[in-house]
Amino acid sequence: MTDINQAIEQLNWKREPYGLYEPIEYTLSTGGKRLRPQLALLGSRLFGGKDEDVLPAALALEVFHNFTLLHDDVMDKAAVRRGRPTVHVRWDDNTAILSGDQMLIEAYKLLSDIKDDKLPKVLRLFNEMATGICEGQQYDMEFEQREDVSIDEYINMIRLKTSVLLGYALQIGAYIAGASDKEQEDIYEAGVNLGIAFQIQDDLLDIYGNPDTFGKATGGDILCGKKTYMLLSAMNKADNETRKTLKELITNDTIGAEEKIKRVKDIYGLLNTREEAEKAINSYTRKAKDTLSRLPQNEAATALLNLADRLATRQI
Amino acid sequence: MTDINQAIEQLNWKREPYGLYEPIEYTLSTGGKRLRPQLALLGSRLFGGKDEDVLPAALALEVFHNFTLLHDDVMDKAAVRRGRPTVHVRWDDNTAILSGDQMLIEAYKLLSDIKDDKLPKVLRLFNEMATGICEGQQYDMEFEQREDVSIDEYINMIRLKTSVLLGYALQIGAYIAGASDKEQEDIYEAGVNLGIAFQIQDDLLDIYGNPDTFGKATGGDILCGKKTYMLLSAMNKADNETRKTLKELITNDTIGAEEKIKRVKDIYGLLNTREEAEKAINSYTRKAKDTLSRLPQNEAATALLNLADRLATRQI
Repeated sequence: MTDINQAIEQLNWKREPYGLYEPIEYTLSTGGKRLRPQLALLGSRLFGGKDEDVLPAALALEVFHNFTLLHDDVMDKAAVRRGRPTVHVRWDDNTAILSGDQMLIEAYKLLSDIKDDKLPKVLRLFNEMATGICEGQQYDMEFEQREDVSIDEYINMIRLKTSVLLGYALQIGAYIAGASDKEQEDIYEAGVNLGIAFQIQDDLLDIYGNPDTFGKATGGDILCGKKTYMLLSAMNKADNETRKTLKELITNDTIGAEEKIKRVKDIYGLLNTREEAEKAINSYTRKAKDTLSRLPQNEAATALLNLADRLATRQI
Repeated sequence: MTDINQAIEQLNWKREPYGLYEPIEYTLSTGGKRLRPQLALLGSRLFGGKDEDVLPAALALEVFHNFTLLHDDVMDKAAVRRGRPTVHVRWDDNTAILSGDQMLIEAYKLLSDIKDDKLPKVLRLFNEMATGICEGQQYDMEFEQREDVSIDEYINMIRLKTSVLLGYALQIGAYIAGASDKEQEDIYEAGVNLGIAFQIQDDLLDIYGNPDTFGKATGGDILCGKKTYMLLSAMNKADNETRKTLKELITNDTIGAEEKIKRVKDIYGLLNTREEAEKAINSYTRKAKDTLSRLPQNEAATALLNLADRLATRQI
């Protein structure tokens, strides 16, 4: 079984100019779930592929994902990532921009180690994936300035920003292993639905997660007025008066943090917002599992189903 | 003859989210010399290649080049590019970062239109080129903080930041057209030497260019204390006293702009700095032309030689 963490550690960043490559090494060494490379490997194993054939793409996906985090942290002015100072805080904005750019190029360099006969299509899939993520990030930034974001728009945004990466990770693995077009389509769809469930669970955990295991204080999304699945679904369901109260609450900077989180949670409680979100998570997870059940059944299939369950019910 | 400007205009950026793609269209519509795609086409024609086979790579190189300008302008806090406000001024920093990222991905998307049998190697060459440019930009930023930059280090920096792009543009064109490994090596070298001449000429024009045709006021490099070929070569040649005077002058913020430029130019005059730079430009141009003379002689060869002369003697 290929150890993704080990493969990532073996990437060599001791290169000049050190100022360019050290932040890349730093970013990749902060851990994380390594979900995307795992999915690429499972997508390949599901169709009998060899890990070594898909590993360059698996690593490219992880490096790409970490590149997006690096640049997103600059754009969001986030100070902490996985318990450590972000690159633009530890170094500076220019370093974060340029090392991020190089990290994106490094992802394409890793990708170019795919066997020549598979490379053209993998490159095209990877480009589509990368485009989706930038588009999703753009919508996410635009939503911050808008008051009228619908749940459909939100789902489309997280589909682009989070889910296509999971879908393409699975598809790229499957394609390299020789899956048919229809099988590739199916596994892509399963990944996308899994990703949407994953992101809604993320929104849920921000409020109801256990701060000890979640790794950060809960309620952060409420405090910064982020348009999450929870908030949009509550807004959608609330009567006019409650909607007005919720809106005022979210934009009110004079209430203390704890009090604000408590009051918003009370409204969520009245509106069954948590249950709504859980219903959505279950629905997207079920869709993903239905699709997976049409694909080959082997050890990799079991691992994927387990992963789907873990993602949908995870506490961190 | 393929019209590069027309091909660039035909790229369609009317896509949602508009906030992501409009800055890309804006950046590409500001013109520029389109030198890199021209070189890719000439590299191909030199070996009897068809324009249409190399066009996707030619466009990818131009989009990539403009991506680097976009992000460099954020890092340098430059307000104007080609007579228009830069993207981060017209929009904001986050837009410039994210649209720049997408522009880099768009370059890879264009590249992926290369025929499958040529794509793997073109992708690897393109990745090497992109890496060189990021490394060059990193050295450039580091040099700003250093007092002891040697001419060799400077030449290495501009080789990475400017010249490898010209070298790889020619090589990618030549490779797609079927040139041998040796021919590809030669044309790459010619492009790199041409690029070094081009950058030293740029440094020269910043001081001795005609402000009417150069498009901006001269002396900008002196005012911001940029370590150009001129400054490093003057520092190198000066006796201890003159070196000290020059150093003090460059870092002195109390002298008026015009007076500062005049005094630095006077020292350059005493040290024959302009002549030194011209000698270096001629030497690199000659090297490039010598290499080109070993390659096929046809219309494209003549065009390349003319281009080399124009770059080395250009006034803008």
